[in-house]
Amino acid sequence: MKDKARKVTVVAFMGAVLLALTASVSCSDDDGNGGGSSGNADLDAIAQERGLTPEDMKHALQQFVPPGKYDDYVMFASGGHSGQVLAVGVPSMRILKTIAVFSPESWQGYGRGADWSEEVLAGGNPPGTELEWGDTHHPALSETGGEYDGRYLYINDRANGRMAFVDLADLRTKQIVAIPNTKTSHGGMFVTPNSEYVHMSAQYPEPWPAGSYADLSEYQEKYRSASSWLKIDEATGRINMEESFQIELPPYNQDLADAGKKISDGWGFIGSFNTEMATGGNMEGGESMEAGMSTNNFDYLHVVNWKAAEAAVKAGKATNINGVNVLSLETAIDEGLLYLIPEPKSPHGADVDPSGRYIVVGGKLDPHVTIFDFNKIQAAIEAKDFEGTDPFGLPILTYDSVVAGQVEVGAGPLHTQFDSQGHGYTSLFLASAVAKFTLGEDVIKTGETPFTLTDTIPVHYNIGHLVTAEGDTVTPDDNYMVALNKWSIDRFLTVGPLHPQNFQLIDLKGGGTEKMELIADTPIGNAEPHYVQIIKADKLKTLDVYPAGTDVLTMGTSEFAIAAGDEKVERNGNVVEIWMSAQRSHFTPDIVRVKQGDTVKLHITNVEQTKDATHGFAVSYYNIQASLDPGEVVNFEFVADKSGVFNFYCTEFCSALHLEMAGWLLVEPSGSAVANPN
Amino acid sequence: MKDKARKVTVVAFMGAVLLALTASVSCSDDDGNGGGSSGNADLDAIAQERGLTPEDMKHALQQFVPPGKYDDYVMFASGGHSGQVLAVGVPSMRILKTIAVFSPESWQGYGRGADWSEEVLAGGNPPGTELEWGDTHHPALSETGGEYDGRYLYINDRANGRMAFVDLADLRTKQIVAIPNTKTSHGGMFVTPNSEYVHMSAQYPEPWPAGSYADLSEYQEKYRSASSWLKIDEATGRINMEESFQIELPPYNQDLADAGKKISDGWGFIGSFNTEMATGGNMEGGESMEAGMSTNNFDYLHVVNWKAAEAAVKAGKATNINGVNVLSLETAIDEGLLYLIPEPKSPHGADVDPSGRYIVVGGKLDPHVTIFDFNKIQAAIEAKDFEGTDPFGLPILTYDSVVAGQVEVGAGPLHTQFDSQGHGYTSLFLASAVAKFTLGEDVIKTGETPFTLTDTIPVHYNIGHLVTAEGDTVTPDDNYMVALNKWSIDRFLTVGPLHPQNFQLIDLKGGGTEKMELIADTPIGNAEPHYVQIIKADKLKTLDVYPAGTDVLTMGTSEFAIAAGDEKVERNGNVVEIWMSAQRSHFTPDIVRVKQGDTVKLHITNVEQTKDATHGFAVSYYNIQASLDPGEVVNFEFVADKSGVFNFYCTEFCSALHLEMAGWLLVEPSGSAVANPN
Repeated sequence: MKDKARKVTVVAFMGAVLLALTASVSCSDDDGNGGGSSGNADLDAIAQERGLTPEDMKHALQQFVPPGKYDDYVMFASGGHSGQVLAVGVPSMRILKTIAVFSPESWQGYGRGADWSEEVLAGGNPPGTELEWGDTHHPALSETGGEYDGRYLYINDRANGRMAFVDLADLRTKQIVAIPNTKTSHGGMFVTPNSEYVHMSAQYPEPWPAGSYADLSEYQEKYRSASSWLKIDEATGRINMEESFQIELPPYNQDLADAGKKISDGWGFIGSFNTEMATGGNMEGGESMEAGMSTNNFDYLHVVNWKAAEAAVKAGKATNINGVNVLSLETAIDEGLLYLIPEPKSPHGADVDPSGRYIVVGGKLDPHVTIFDFNKIQAAIEAKDFEGTDPFGLPILTYDSVVAGQVEVGAGPLHTQFDSQGHGYTSLFLASAVAKFTLGEDVIKTGETPFTLTDTIPVHYNIGHLVTAEGDTVTPDDNYMVALNKWSIDRFLTVGPLHPQNFQLIDLKGGGTEKMELIADTPIGNAEPHYVQIIKADKLKTLDVYPAGTDVLTMGTSEFAIAAGDEKVERNGNVVEIWMSAQRSHFTPDIVRVKQGDTVKLHITNVEQTKDATHGFAVSYYNIQASLDPGEVVNFEFVADKSGVFNFYCTEFCSALHLEMAGWLLVEPSGSAVANPN
Repeated sequence: MKDKARKVTVVAFMGAVLLALTASVSCSDDDGNGGGSSGNADLDAIAQERGLTPEDMKHALQQFVPPGKYDDYVMFASGGHSGQVLAVGVPSMRILKTIAVFSPESWQGYGRGADWSEEVLAGGNPPGTELEWGDTHHPALSETGGEYDGRYLYINDRANGRMAFVDLADLRTKQIVAIPNTKTSHGGMFVTPNSEYVHMSAQYPEPWPAGSYADLSEYQEKYRSASSWLKIDEATGRINMEESFQIELPPYNQDLADAGKKISDGWGFIGSFNTEMATGGNMEGGESMEAGMSTNNFDYLHVVNWKAAEAAVKAGKATNINGVNVLSLETAIDEGLLYLIPEPKSPHGADVDPSGRYIVVGGKLDPHVTIFDFNKIQAAIEAKDFEGTDPFGLPILTYDSVVAGQVEVGAGPLHTQFDSQGHGYTSLFLASAVAKFTLGEDVIKTGETPFTLTDTIPVHYNIGHLVTAEGDTVTPDDNYMVALNKWSIDRFLTVGPLHPQNFQLIDLKGGGTEKMELIADTPIGNAEPHYVQIIKADKLKTLDVYPAGTDVLTMGTSEFAIAAGDEKVERNGNVVEIWMSAQRSHFTPDIVRVKQGDTVKLHITNVEQTKDATHGFAVSYYNIQASLDPGEVVNFEFVADKSGVFNFYCTEFCSALHLEMAGWLLVEPSGSAVANPN
């Protein structure tokens, strides 16, 4: 070849390139904009060309986060039956990260061989079953003094009796816990105002105690439910099951719940339905659950005195059932831990306002929200002002004594959030709208009339939950609301019969008397967003890189960490143990030679400390995939059961020579068996 | 309870509600905006409050898609090591859907028990191994006459020798194919201009034929690679392996590839690297792969005459190896099927311009792009104008005879896309920029000088691929480019050491002589976007609902479909077979009684035909989750090995009584074993 004649400057250029390959990337602030004034004529011309109305133009400016600028909030959204959690920027509504929780996720190296992730996922498995997905429902951020503190996130699995802890230091799931006596849960997840406990209640009752068997014909006698109070270890965020407890509940279906706040701190409120104790049987001469469960005009709000319950447990009044302290229904009655309040039929929400005084219930088959007053509840309990007991002997507080008001908000009220100005905002599933109404006069700052509908905004379509920024705290913000719509129908391009959900960003106009305004639609096409919480971005103190040699579960130094140059391979019998490093743009060693049937123990350290210098590690045909963030150590153990020549490679585009960051796993065939994929 | 005294209108309201529950949702066009003029003062006030510059205001208007309006394009993006594909709206950059491809995805009911999905996933498994993730790399849209036709999408798995077919009728993966003699692939995926074949080439050579074993010391002698030409069945989109073929290649690493177009139709172009045949060994006295593979100043562009290869196969010149017709290297040489062209070191791109005349190569360790002329290639082949042969006897076309020009574009050129005005746009990994340059004068429509750098725009950061709208067709659009950046570093809120990728939307200004302009950044936090293609939205003819009783694999009527009212349960020995319906808001039957150890065969029909009326079907603790879109039939078969009372429920929020859409799986304990999760 006639290299010299060609217009290439390969040789001189190479030195600079090779230096650049291992250096940190240069982070220019220059985003290529020319600056200067765009002028209104420019804006009008773009709007004209793109068919934007003047309203659209305003909304575009309200939502847009310019290149290189940051969102104000992070919304943590359940991923529903994807089993994961989404972190979304607000107001841009851009998905910043999918966090793997209950389902393996190869991109994050979660459940594809990396030891830490296998350990986390196994934490929630019942004996003999490896659960491979979940249905995340209600995220709950940790709180200090009733404010989100940006440390921990908890989320339940509706499909199985589990909950997970996500560490907000690195947005990774660090613990999955099997909840005894609980097969499923729905909306009962909340954290108490100082993160003493995370609460979760069972959705479906089951033969009690769990592990026994009983036919549905014995439903009322033998089925029970549980309200779980899971103790948070303050330092690590993990659940301490020994210090956790449950309260036995009647066989109703437990639903949305909320913690008391401020004056109601120490209490919890759980909406429930199916006081009918209907069990379906639509092909056994019965009626469908939906009909049977919608017969009674009132179900029961469960009012729990968790501080008293905690004391009762400490006083030895609980029984250990399947590994957790359980307060029986009888004890709950005797000790005054649990009261019922009638709530209009098929309630979905049970939401406590920022003052802690008002508990708002949306009865989904009643066009009103019903607002209870904590002060009245306390007085009624004090006065034993009961209108009777339920079939299990639980006292029912007299409705008229505890209700503060009702507001007719529209069809299908579900869930309520609040602003700081004395308003509640309730999602209306059937009306596909959000209603805004006033609470009691002691919290209204706008001069409006208490318990009055003041505004309604249509949403698109079939809204489930809704959220305001910092909405579950004692000081919600008054700017953004997000409506979590279950159907999108005609709002987006058709991407198949499985349509995306629709997150709608709504302007609350400062919580004043101005009408709410829709800003933007966001398709959610990788999960069903069930519920979300929105936290101020500056409350999150998330790591950019791990300290060198980090074990992500302990956040300490891994016993398997190495520095570059300390790589080694040891063989003991049929065990091959390798301490490998990953660094732009090679693994060391890059050849691993084993014999078919050998056990391979692989410890890999990403020896980089440069932000974003993540390496992946995958082995073809071995189902192995890890994500090694800077400073991280990952361990694998596997049996080299397939003979042949396999490639391992970096799965995260890390450098110009990323394609060359690869190596060989040579599995020499054993005499007896050759199982070589071709 | 004193119902009458309470301000509830439950009874009267119920009739209307129950009607509404099963009716189609009402799709109001009213988005709650007041209309009228926003006025420039309004816009300026918002910009002032949010800190937007005049440029930001323009960009906001360029990107914003108002609520209820549609994006112009759909971008199909590889999900990298998530194993999935993303469908993204352009210009809004909103993710419309994650399409499950190589990794199970419970939200879509993919790989969690539904028979169709288990069948698809199993299609790519080697004997004895169940692959549970993949690394999607290069999506390739089907074409007719060199234009995307919106019918089919193909994508390869870099981690394992597989490719997948996604049906754009419903955006579901319908086939995964194991590619013989191929353990991994990288960027070699493309569809020929009339969708005759989809091409995929092996990235790493392996002992040849696959299934044999050879040490790396015998690399040059015994390792080979393959270029696969996979025949597309025109009617179904599926790969027909019997009519597919491979061409044996030397043990170089095959990389990005592209199909010839128009004048070069019938040819394919594959970039490759590692003509050094380096195999690493950095702990065995050798050097790392990255160093060994970067020694030679030139690697080889592989030029394949696929129409002649197809004819050779039909003429019986191929040999069946591991289930596919293979043309040996010898045959390829003898029949003139394969030629090499020297390309500057460590090439990454090999991209054919819309005219089909120019093939642009980016050598990632050379600051130039090198542009070859198909007419000159044809003349050189005709004249046997070779500068030698490679070690395997393949003829090397004389570089000077086939090169059209070189352009110094900057550090680390990788991949090139084109507009319709005679420009190429090349990603520069090391420079973190995109370079714009002119092609030959016969295609330039702007009067600019051929083979000249005309513009550069910085990107943030470490760009891999890039794409223009309709970019791989014979008529690309000249409006949008998306830069696929691998690092985002300081561009978004920190969401942990695993940072999102960054898709940057760039304004091409009509492909004229104006400078390119950055519009917006988009974090991609659920995958590594490797490569993407952008198709005009109106080319997609995607189903809104399935016809009643659809089997999604055949798209015909399922033999297990039922209408409402035809539900039944049959028991034969220890097999319980159930034909179930799903409809707002119940399953029929809603109680399933089996004995521990029974085999359960479950056929579920979503009997609805309302757009977006998807139901999910999950069984707690049984790892079962399906998504049943309107009209869809899903089948499960499982052994009821765990005794106890389990809940099945609808996982997709479908109605106000969605929570009540549930049922019971009663697994009566067998005498011998009770394994009841508690």
